[in-house]
Amino acid sequence: MNLKEYLKRRQRLVDGALERWVPADHEFPPHVHQAMRYSLFAGGKRLRPILALAAAEAVGGRAADALPLACSLELIHTYSLIHDDLPSMDDDDLRRGKPTSHKVFGEALAILAGDALLTEAFHLLTRPDLMPDVSPRRRLKAINQVARAAGSYGMVGGQVMDISSQGLKIEPHLLEYIHSHKTGALIAASVCAGAIIGGASPSQCKALNRYGEELGLAFQVIDDLLDVQGEERKLGKAVGKDQAKGKATYPGFFGIAESRRKAEVLVEEALGHLHPFDGRANPLREIAKFILKRTG
Amino acid sequence: MNLKEYLKRRQRLVDGALERWVPADHEFPPHVHQAMRYSLFAGGKRLRPILALAAAEAVGGRAADALPLACSLELIHTYSLIHDDLPSMDDDDLRRGKPTSHKVFGEALAILAGDALLTEAFHLLTRPDLMPDVSPRRRLKAINQVARAAGSYGMVGGQVMDISSQGLKIEPHLLEYIHSHKTGALIAASVCAGAIIGGASPSQCKALNRYGEELGLAFQVIDDLLDVQGEERKLGKAVGKDQAKGKATYPGFFGIAESRRKAEVLVEEALGHLHPFDGRANPLREIAKFILKRTG
Repeated sequence: MNLKEYLKRRQRLVDGALERWVPADHEFPPHVHQAMRYSLFAGGKRLRPILALAAAEAVGGRAADALPLACSLELIHTYSLIHDDLPSMDDDDLRRGKPTSHKVFGEALAILAGDALLTEAFHLLTRPDLMPDVSPRRRLKAINQVARAAGSYGMVGGQVMDISSQGLKIEPHLLEYIHSHKTGALIAASVCAGAIIGGASPSQCKALNRYGEELGLAFQVIDDLLDVQGEERKLGKAVGKDQAKGKATYPGFFGIAESRRKAEVLVEEALGHLHPFDGRANPLREIAKFILKRTG
Repeated sequence: MNLKEYLKRRQRLVDGALERWVPADHEFPPHVHQAMRYSLFAGGKRLRPILALAAAEAVGGRAADALPLACSLELIHTYSLIHDDLPSMDDDDLRRGKPTSHKVFGEALAILAGDALLTEAFHLLTRPDLMPDVSPRRRLKAINQVARAAGSYGMVGGQVMDISSQGLKIEPHLLEYIHSHKTGALIAASVCAGAIIGGASPSQCKALNRYGEELGLAFQVIDDLLDVQGEERKLGKAVGKDQAKGKATYPGFFGIAESRRKAEVLVEEALGHLHPFDGRANPLREIAKFILKRTG
C-alpha cells in the first residue's frame, strides 16, 4: 500500500466530516465557534481519527461507522492542545506554524473554546442521527474508553504530572507515566474504541489496545527527539523548548541514540500485537513503521 | 411534603454517590483528584442532581437509576464554576465561602481539574457497571441532552457572551440569552435527561424541558437579585460584584421590583408545564416555589 496516499485520503475524509459536523463559524455565539474551528482546522495530521478508522476496519468493521468517533477524537485532541498552550501551562505562542488560540482570541475564549470542543466530542458521539448501524451498547462502550483515556486517569493525568514536575529531577518511571498518559492514552483509546465500533472481540480489543499503547509511547519519544533534532519549519513550532522549560524528555534522560532505540523497540512490540490480524490490519502496521520516520 | 427535609435527604444521597464514584484524593495523580474533590465537596446545594432525580420519579421512574446522571450533572456544574472563577474569566477569589480552586491549587491545576471533572461526567455516564436497568438507547439520549446543554449551544455559549459583553450596553434579548444559556440550559437538561432516564414519553419530555427552562431562568434572575440584595455571609461569595464588573443583570436592566415580578411569572409558567403530571411531580412543584424564597 501507498501509505502517503492512504493518509492523505483519510485526512480528507475526516476533514470533510469535521466540516459537516462541527458548528459553523457563523452559528451563535460566533466567537466560540470561530475559535473552535481556528484550532481544529490548523493543519492537524488527524492521526487519532485515522487510527480509529483503521482499527474499525482491521476487525472487519466499516470506516464510515467509526467516522463520528474519529472526529470526536480530533475534537478532544484539539481541546488538549489549546489548554496545554495556555500561559499558565506551557505558555506557547506557536502551534502548527500559527499563533496559538489564546494569542488570537485571548485567554478566556481559548479556555472556553477548549471546553466546548471537549463537550462537543461527547455530543457528536451521542447524536441520534449518526452511527445508525452501530448498537447503542457498542457506542456506550466506545465512549467510555474515550472518556477514561481523556480524563484524570489518562491524558489530563499526564498533563498534570508534566506541569507539576517541570524543573524537577524525575525518575524514568514518572517520565514514562507522563508520556504514556499525556499522549499515549488517547492514541490507545483511538485504536481501542475504533475496534469496538468495528465489532472487535474482547481478545482483539486487548491486542489492539496494547498496540495503541506502544504506538502512543513511541510517538511521544519521537516527538521529544524532534524537539531536539527537528527543524522548526517542518514542525510548525519552536524546537528546543522542552529543555528550555526544564521538561523531562526521553533524550534528556537517555540520550538521543538510546531514545531512538527505545522508539524502535516500542514499534516492534506494537507490530507484534498485530500478529493475530490479517491483511486488513496492514494500515495499522504501516502507520506504526511510519511513526519512526516522521520529521514533522 | 417537607421540602427542607426532602432536599437534605436527596443532598445526602447525591453526596454519598459522588463520594463513591469520583476518584479518591490519593488516586494517582493525587494533585488533580484533590483539586476535583475540593470544589466538588465545597458545599453545593446539588440542585441539578436533585432535579434529575425528581424528574425521573415524576414520570414513574426510579431515582436510583438516575443517580449516575445526577452525579454527572454536578461534575459538569462544578467544572463550570472552577473555569468561570479563573483570573482570565470572572477572577473570583471566593466561592461558597472558600478560596476558589486557582487560589488554592494555582491556575494550571484549576484548569485541568475542571477539564477532568467535565470528562469524568461522561465517563460516569457510560460506566458499564452502573445503570443496569436503563437501556443503552435511553442512556445515549440522556447523554446527548446533557452534552448539548453543556457545550457551545448551551452553557459555554452563555459564558462566552457573558464574558464578551462585560462593560457593554446590551439589549434585553442578549441578557436573556446569557442567563438562559449560562445557567438555564444545564438546569433544563437536568430535568429533561432525568425524565428520559425515568422513561418519559416525548410529550412528557417536552413539558419537563419547558419547566426546566423557565425554572433555570428564574433561578438566575434570583441569583442576580441576591447579588444586589443578599448577604455575603449566606451566599458565601462577595455581593455587588456583578455591578462592579459591569455585568449585565436583570436588576441592572429592569430594576429590583420588576426583576422580582419576572422571576415570579417564570415560576408560575414553570408550574403550568407540570399540569399534566400527577402527585409524583410534587417535588418539582415545591422546588420551583422554593426558588423564589432562597436567600443563599
